[in-house]
Amino acid sequence: MTTHDKVRVSVLGLGEMGRALAGALVKDGHTTTVWNRSPGKADDLVAQGAERAATARDAVRAGPLVIACLLDHASVHEVLDPLAGELAGRTLINVTTTSPAQSRELAAWAADAGVTYLDGGIMAVPDMIGRAGSSVLYSGSADAFDRYKPLLDTWGTSTYFGEDAGLASLYDLALLAGMYVMFAGFLHGAAMVAPSGMRAGEFAAMAAPWLSAMTGAFEGFAAVIDGGDYTVEGQQSLEFSDLGDILAASSDQGVSTEAVAMVQRLIRRQIDAGHGGEGFARVFESIRRPQ
Amino acid sequence: MTTHDKVRVSVLGLGEMGRALAGALVKDGHTTTVWNRSPGKADDLVAQGAERAATARDAVRAGPLVIACLLDHASVHEVLDPLAGELAGRTLINVTTTSPAQSRELAAWAADAGVTYLDGGIMAVPDMIGRAGSSVLYSGSADAFDRYKPLLDTWGTSTYFGEDAGLASLYDLALLAGMYVMFAGFLHGAAMVAPSGMRAGEFAAMAAPWLSAMTGAFEGFAAVIDGGDYTVEGQQSLEFSDLGDILAASSDQGVSTEAVAMVQRLIRRQIDAGHGGEGFARVFESIRRPQ
Ligand SMILES: NC(=O)c1ccc[n+]([C@@H]2O[C@H](COP(=O)([O-])OP(=O)(O)OC[C@H]3O[C@@H](n4cnc5c(N)ncnc54)[C@H](OP(=O)(O)O)[C@@H]3O)[C@@H](O)[C@H]2O)c1
Ligand SMILES: NC(=O)c1ccc[n+]([C@@H]2O[C@H](COP(=O)([O-])OP(=O)(O)OC[C@H]3O[C@@H](n4cnc5c(N)ncnc54)[C@H](OP(=O)(O)O)[C@@H]3O)[C@@H](O)[C@H]2O)c1
Repeated sequence: MTTHDKVRVSVLGLGEMGRALAGALVKDGHTTTVWNRSPGKADDLVAQGAERAATARDAVRAGPLVIACLLDHASVHEVLDPLAGELAGRTLINVTTTSPAQSRELAAWAADAGVTYLDGGIMAVPDMIGRAGSSVLYSGSADAFDRYKPLLDTWGTSTYFGEDAGLASLYDLALLAGMYVMFAGFLHGAAMVAPSGMRAGEFAAMAAPWLSAMTGAFEGFAAVIDGGDYTVEGQQSLEFSDLGDILAASSDQGVSTEAVAMVQRLIRRQIDAGHGGEGFARVFESIRRPQ
Repeated sequence: MTTHDKVRVSVLGLGEMGRALAGALVKDGHTTTVWNRSPGKADDLVAQGAERAATARDAVRAGPLVIACLLDHASVHEVLDPLAGELAGRTLINVTTTSPAQSRELAAWAADAGVTYLDGGIMAVPDMIGRAGSSVLYSGSADAFDRYKPLLDTWGTSTYFGEDAGLASLYDLALLAGMYVMFAGFLHGAAMVAPSGMRAGEFAAMAAPWLSAMTGAFEGFAAVIDGGDYTVEGQQSLEFSDLGDILAASSDQGVSTEAVAMVQRLIRRQIDAGHGGEGFARVFESIRRPQ
């Protein structure tokens, strides 16, 4: 970013994530005003060069761009509802985690108040902000995204998905869904091997590179799904993917079979519908069309 | 491997995987005898320098080391039961996928027959054999593993787990459990975003690096599990990990909630037992001690 692009920006909410975001902005040379409900959390940032606002109103007034990083949807309304007048004509980028419906509601609220609204979903933990692997998803105002992209890029890779303010939250939640389900799969494996004396740390050292390598299969599944033909050659079939051995071994080890049984049900539903010879990617259909 | 270490080895079973394993051995300069039930599958290997055996008996007689890569446990018995006499005094390395119980049964059968037995679980697809990322797990005879490790290393990273022949299968199945559950998580995410117009390929391009990066969390979960104290500071709590938003967004998109609901149940069980303020790694306890 050239000096010319430096922006006067305000950050509302200095929890773990808000402090990381504001810190990256200060470091990148933006004039950054910070505010937090309870005192004390701004001190380090002020020492680094941020300006302290006594109230959220003062923070909003400080410049054309306001970043909200609060706890949840309710806290965003609690802080911003009284400030609709001040926000009019300004840009609000809300990176608080919200559901797609909540993001759309905030976009409508902002439109009524004459506020330009961009919604963000942060795919990173605070430590990752500004480093490799950090990614933030955006949707809502394309103008806001285009204008402030150089600033947003200080946090990580910035990707814009469209005018529907709910899209960033939706994609955020879809990626989080994948993450939590993967975590359950890892913990299932760790629980399976524990009774045989393998420590979780030993299992993690095997499972992390293994699952990382196996994400390489997503592209192939996706090509089959997008191609719309689950019968193409060279795929592992659903019948071959029967998880009976894994379920039996889990039971033999005395652990819960719930995680694996969930996948087995999704597989079985396709086999029972007569698609056993087709590719594993067809599990997508079990999820897309609930019973 | 020095010329001195080259081994006379026989491979029984030339399916997709058997051909990849035998091909790597031929390429590495081992005198390799190959056999397959139905004809034709040995031709390419013979052209590369392998020796063709007319019967499984001839293959076993050809040298001190026999690799079995057949379809399943039943086919291993079908091929080897009549050859117990020839196998006596030789080493059998069985990389056919079997359950832990089946591996132990084969080890006992081999012990009765005077056969040195090593069980293997291949964590790779045929294309990966001999390349980076290929890993094979072993358990059973430590002597066999030590003697033949240089040969086994031609297939990928070789790891030995102990004399219990069932361990390699168990760890193999635990890693496969993690993989299948992760696949379901990926397909859930792809199904969630599909109704909003995102193609599976677009989602895969985001989800593969994201989930790959998130495998970085396994080590931290494992440290908490092995440490035995789920209350240590700095963890994401179970209460914070409530998946209500993801479940609601999945329903709003009209897709099945099964994959995410499975994780939510495992989380809830710990919260309901009064551990909501403790770390996410505690989900391990929901799996380890089934209801
Ligand atoms: N941490 C992560 O790894 C991560 C990752 C991705 C997304 N996010 C999202 O980022 C947002 C912030 O997360 P965080 O980790 O920074 O959380 P946090 O450390 O718990 O901080 C929460 C912040 O919200 C403020 N707040 C809560 N209720 C408020 C209210 N009614 N009025 C005014 N301020 C209020 C808190 O102010 P006080 O100091 O006064 O309590 C604090 O600044 C969340 O939506 C979270 O989902 C976090
Ligand atoms: N492919 C993979 O990605 C992969 C990965 C990890 C582990 N594995 C394991 O490796 C093993 C072999 O897999 P693969 O992919 O090579 O399978 P495959 O291509 O289906 O080949 C199966 C092999 O088993 C033979 N066979 C089956 N039943 C037999 C019987 N009753 N008597 C004699 N031979 C019999 C077949 O002989 P015919 O040619 O006469 O039918 C063929 O050589 C399996 O246990 C599999 O789980 C495979």
